[in-house]
Amino acid sequence: MTYCVAALLQGGLVLASDTRTHAGVDHVASFCKMRVYQRPGDRVVVLLSAGNLATTQAMVHLLDSQSWVDTAQPTLWNASSMFEVAQRIGDALRSVQDRDGPYLNQHSIDYGASILVGGQIAGEDCRLFNIYPQGNFIEATPDTLYFQIGEVKYGKPILDRVLTWETQLSEAAKCTLISFDSTVRSNISVGLPIDLAVYQRDSLTLSQPRRIFDNDPYYSMLHSSWGQGLRRVFAEMPDPDWI
Amino acid sequence: MTYCVAALLQGGLVLASDTRTHAGVDHVASFCKMRVYQRPGDRVVVLLSAGNLATTQAMVHLLDSQSWVDTAQPTLWNASSMFEVAQRIGDALRSVQDRDGPYLNQHSIDYGASILVGGQIAGEDCRLFNIYPQGNFIEATPDTLYFQIGEVKYGKPILDRVLTWETQLSEAAKCTLISFDSTVRSNISVGLPIDLAVYQRDSLTLSQPRRIFDNDPYYSMLHSSWGQGLRRVFAEMPDPDWI
Repeated sequence: MTYCVAALLQGGLVLASDTRTHAGVDHVASFCKMRVYQRPGDRVVVLLSAGNLATTQAMVHLLDSQSWVDTAQPTLWNASSMFEVAQRIGDALRSVQDRDGPYLNQHSIDYGASILVGGQIAGEDCRLFNIYPQGNFIEATPDTLYFQIGEVKYGKPILDRVLTWETQLSEAAKCTLISFDSTVRSNISVGLPIDLAVYQRDSLTLSQPRRIFDNDPYYSMLHSSWGQGLRRVFAEMPDPDWI
Repeated sequence: MTYCVAALLQGGLVLASDTRTHAGVDHVASFCKMRVYQRPGDRVVVLLSAGNLATTQAMVHLLDSQSWVDTAQPTLWNASSMFEVAQRIGDALRSVQDRDGPYLNQHSIDYGASILVGGQIAGEDCRLFNIYPQGNFIEATPDTLYFQIGEVKYGKPILDRVLTWETQLSEAAKCTLISFDSTVRSNISVGLPIDLAVYQRDSLTLSQPRRIFDNDPYYSMLHSSWGQGLRRVFAEMPDPDWI
């Protein structure tokens, strides 16, 4: 499995992905699921992927190779809006599945993939999309401002409780890392390191996403403080007096 | 969906189930998914069910009707151990699925059901089993002391963080209700009221399970205190200084 989260906030975007992949318990490996396309001052596009790794790698290959073959061809580099970016990713996803699907269907292999893509292109606002395995997509709004893909359930409660449109980027990054901590603790198919990107609205530039290993001092502090804090809050509440 | 949890602890058992069922968004209803069989001094058996409601109701009907038809027939009332209880429930589940399965398969309807059964029969220890839709089952031990069925993921992190073999029954009941609160908050297919049973090891008697409605003062207190507590712990931890 995989876990990816992306949130659209007043201040910009927070995007994070784990790096564990597995095809059965014998094939557990580490792959980066975050890909950044940026031309400072013009566009920042961050793509997170979950699902069949062969599908997502082939999709990325297709997106990347298009830009070299023919500069007039529709690519992520000449898309005029984030909507077009999402469309082109959806098209690449469909193209890979059209090619591989019939062969994988014969063996009942799930070749689907889900993509989160967020970013900003000069001339329009910062946007975030959730692209379904079928290539269609939805966009985040202040009402529903975050998306998750992969192993989404364990880490959802903290996002629901904390994230609002006004949440600061650094606070949202903290919330995202706690969401990962809950997921990693309850599900072995999600694992560190975590790649975390924080994009400030209208900056049109992104510094290198941070790779968080399990010995990262901040993550370790969060991990232990959050666990202790939860147990403290739990202990402070009275037990039911009717037992 | 449904959410049921049962934990085997040094002090006994805590078992809880929600009451929401749905067959599409037009058919949301309330059904009790907890069933108690007890003969004080001899046996206490608590059964929680998730999955296809027609299957679980037919299974309960079968378990109940057996006992009236023929007292020599194997029933939950004359099972000599909790292992036998689990076997007889598994048999009833298989019997219903054998009868209905072929018709439901024609319409690709999932007719599976999962059962948790815990309790104690005079002469042996308190035990807890997780019965799979296929009728086979596993038993809880101090190493893996709780089981969940239904919509299990949202409410798992708190159980993982708090429950140990030594956890007191009242504290485990509190933990279970928080686990339900997290689930209900993140998933509309799980809903109140909650039925909660607490069995004290070796008592061989069970008082009426408590039905917890959303205006229950203790549950309301937990709901708000837990949410506030989490946000407080969250706020106390520093934001990352590298953003």
